[in-house]
Amino acid sequence: MSKKVIPRSQNFSGWYTDVITKAGLADYGPVKGTMVIKPYGFSLWENLRDSLDKMIKDSGHVNAYFPLFIPKSFLAQEAEHVEGFAKECAVVTHSRLKAGKDGLIVDPESKLDEEVIVRPTSETVIWSMYKKWIQSYRDLPLLINQWANVVRWEMRTRLFLRTTEFLWQEGHTAHATEEEAEKETLLILSIYKKLAEEFLAVPVLTGLKSEAEKFAGAERTYCIEAMMGDKRALQAGTSHNLGQNFAKAFGVTFQTEDNKEKYVHATSWGVSTRLLGAVIMTHGDDKGLRLPPKIAPYQIVIVPIFRTDEDRQNIHHFLEPALNKFKNNGVRYYEDWSPNSPGFKFNEWEMKGVPIRLEVGPRDVNESNVILARRDTGEKKSYSINGIFSKVSELLEEIQNNLFQQALTFRENHTHSTDSYEEFKSLIKEKGGFIKCGWDGESETELRIKEETKATVRCILSDGEISKKMCVYSGKPAKYEVIFAKAY
Amino acid sequence: MSKKVIPRSQNFSGWYTDVITKAGLADYGPVKGTMVIKPYGFSLWENLRDSLDKMIKDSGHVNAYFPLFIPKSFLAQEAEHVEGFAKECAVVTHSRLKAGKDGLIVDPESKLDEEVIVRPTSETVIWSMYKKWIQSYRDLPLLINQWANVVRWEMRTRLFLRTTEFLWQEGHTAHATEEEAEKETLLILSIYKKLAEEFLAVPVLTGLKSEAEKFAGAERTYCIEAMMGDKRALQAGTSHNLGQNFAKAFGVTFQTEDNKEKYVHATSWGVSTRLLGAVIMTHGDDKGLRLPPKIAPYQIVIVPIFRTDEDRQNIHHFLEPALNKFKNNGVRYYEDWSPNSPGFKFNEWEMKGVPIRLEVGPRDVNESNVILARRDTGEKKSYSINGIFSKVSELLEEIQNNLFQQALTFRENHTHSTDSYEEFKSLIKEKGGFIKCGWDGESETELRIKEETKATVRCILSDGEISKKMCVYSGKPAKYEVIFAKAY
Repeated sequence: MSKKVIPRSQNFSGWYTDVITKAGLADYGPVKGTMVIKPYGFSLWENLRDSLDKMIKDSGHVNAYFPLFIPKSFLAQEAEHVEGFAKECAVVTHSRLKAGKDGLIVDPESKLDEEVIVRPTSETVIWSMYKKWIQSYRDLPLLINQWANVVRWEMRTRLFLRTTEFLWQEGHTAHATEEEAEKETLLILSIYKKLAEEFLAVPVLTGLKSEAEKFAGAERTYCIEAMMGDKRALQAGTSHNLGQNFAKAFGVTFQTEDNKEKYVHATSWGVSTRLLGAVIMTHGDDKGLRLPPKIAPYQIVIVPIFRTDEDRQNIHHFLEPALNKFKNNGVRYYEDWSPNSPGFKFNEWEMKGVPIRLEVGPRDVNESNVILARRDTGEKKSYSINGIFSKVSELLEEIQNNLFQQALTFRENHTHSTDSYEEFKSLIKEKGGFIKCGWDGESETELRIKEETKATVRCILSDGEISKKMCVYSGKPAKYEVIFAKAY
Repeated sequence: MSKKVIPRSQNFSGWYTDVITKAGLADYGPVKGTMVIKPYGFSLWENLRDSLDKMIKDSGHVNAYFPLFIPKSFLAQEAEHVEGFAKECAVVTHSRLKAGKDGLIVDPESKLDEEVIVRPTSETVIWSMYKKWIQSYRDLPLLINQWANVVRWEMRTRLFLRTTEFLWQEGHTAHATEEEAEKETLLILSIYKKLAEEFLAVPVLTGLKSEAEKFAGAERTYCIEAMMGDKRALQAGTSHNLGQNFAKAFGVTFQTEDNKEKYVHATSWGVSTRLLGAVIMTHGDDKGLRLPPKIAPYQIVIVPIFRTDEDRQNIHHFLEPALNKFKNNGVRYYEDWSPNSPGFKFNEWEMKGVPIRLEVGPRDVNESNVILARRDTGEKKSYSINGIFSKVSELLEEIQNNLFQQALTFRENHTHSTDSYEEFKSLIKEKGGFIKCGWDGESETELRIKEETKATVRCILSDGEISKKMCVYSGKPAKYEVIFAKAY
């Protein structure tokens, strides 16, 4: 297998799949639409997950685990919810296989009394439990998160972005008042923004989704929305204010301090392995991945250049104190002593997106130097081995910031404002990117624009300036300032 | 709901379920046989998981994630494996629900071309991938672990011990030689022993399983086996040498250094949420849980005793420096400022098994003292607040060791050696516990003993002294020294 990837500049979609496969992030599973997350990709996920898990816990939430299987009837409890999920769910109907003429067959005698579905999301099973757990205001707020796999039987799948099964966290909280639930929804949105921007170096817009794009069963859905390297939008995370919809569907009430019986207010929120798709498509280039140091499996790769065993040993001894310092200070590094050529290794680790490469050969050892090459800029410089730890720490921070800045500049350069629908159409067609404009708030308008241009409302800008704006389509006074774009 | 638990001494099985429910470890899910792991129980699991994950990684393994769904045909690839798992697996047959007359129905048009099963274990799906990933000796060893949920459609379920869905880790490794695979199997066994004994304070015996008890598809299964508080045995973890069975079933060969084509050698190994059952049943007493400090969600609970706001503030200020020191040094603590009475809180936290309770009232503040009560021994003593951090650290270590020693003594006191089958039968019937004896190694003998006494071979002692021993049943020369016991 050639280690060169399809150039991103020529074929974004081909590049995306190619880089995932060749960098060892993921592979296709045997059942259509399923994905294997390979060790390198999983390490990236673990770093993301641990960063987010800490923020979730630090803000007062606790983790738990709810069952994979949901009784079929539960899904029907909330009217919009069932609409959203019934069409694409894995249904378990039997519990046994047996030997048949042509191999293993489903044993008809093992048919279940009630079919169960594999969770596409866990609101229903969780709210059936909350009914047992919540009696009084003393039980509120209930702030629970879970890390889990969920299944949506998607027809058109794509590694990380849309797979039949994916990994995510889903938070499910219960509150005494509407205000508290709204506050929680926004708190989580801010945590997601922080995760995206400070850890993944992916700039995001935050705001409400339109009715058409909101979660099935929510009152309001807030999102973090990012621009990918092909200028298309990616919904990177959502935080829902569910109002009392699920509390009513499952009969979850609580006794207030003054002895009244009220329905509780709910939120739910989630981000998934899709975020890895965002990282890849935001930062990658023709050479492969460029990973943000904070979540990179390896922050620095050591490529020793040697011919003889003596060289090898000298380099090893020369580096030892620095590597120990890396280790003790939590710098994640990898030493590539494999027999491959330095050139091969350079390409390999560039494709894998390691932020810094440290090169060192016999001459460097003599001069007490090493060479550091930055993956983000390609810049290569020689540094004294003394103080290399501080230099590396400094560079890692610089790279983290630079990746974010590059992505932010890219987004800004490809965000266009317009009041004219003609311009809107030509922008979508010719240039792509985000279009900032007025919208009258009508679903009909959104639908028409989608039909005519394939662009949808990605995000109602929370800080939108709407005075005097007109709807780009209808010409009526705008209700919102929004971002329209074609999306994944 | 009364917070008193059914006394363990009167009804072990009733106590077990009661303590799990009342201490907030877990609850039943809506689908029969499923379990909700509540926040307190999940925190226990997270501590266990993180301890093990570190040991798995430190010994050179990496994590990955493989799909939940396995094509039905895969299960049939390995003859013994299908025997072991086909009878109890969740089968997905359809991918859509639709509105019917009486609610939601399975859409017959969404029938899958090939049914998929929800993984009961992942050997088959993983080996189908290894076939793609392994070509040459350079790709070996492949040392992969995953944390995942698995499903076995069990008829008689019990919280943590046997549930339809459970959480576990499953390691799957590929090696060039038989020796390496065997070494890996034993390395993992030693890690499992360390986890059980040093973290969970659960003493375990290690050794081979008999043919009847080994994993479906393995050449040899090693286990860690523990004695529960009712003297029954619990299989707490297994490590399998799979030989070339799965490599042959999936056609996984590699090119050796001297250009030969060989089948690879495999291992797999796992421990699950069942280990929490072991912790509960090993250490619990009539008052509830007793948790080992190393994995306890809270290592120390603070119970302030106060009437006035002034008391409250004084206590708060008095404790602050100590609590900061706890926090900065990773001591997990909880402050219970709830309006419940001290007596209520004492019972509550004893039931929840927190290793140390710190009591402090206004008089203690005046005297610069606090009271520490040990959950393991019930001992209560007053200590100066100065140096309380070292005292607590010391006590936590003592409690960890004491729980282990108590359990070890219990196991030793209830392990009996015998050469007489009459005595064997009366021991099993009257006393329970482990019986150490000779066994001729015949499956027929094991089956007979099982039929007559319900005891099975739990573990072939790796350090068994078999010279001159006779089989306790057949009187023939013993092939092994083994432990027989009734088991969960």
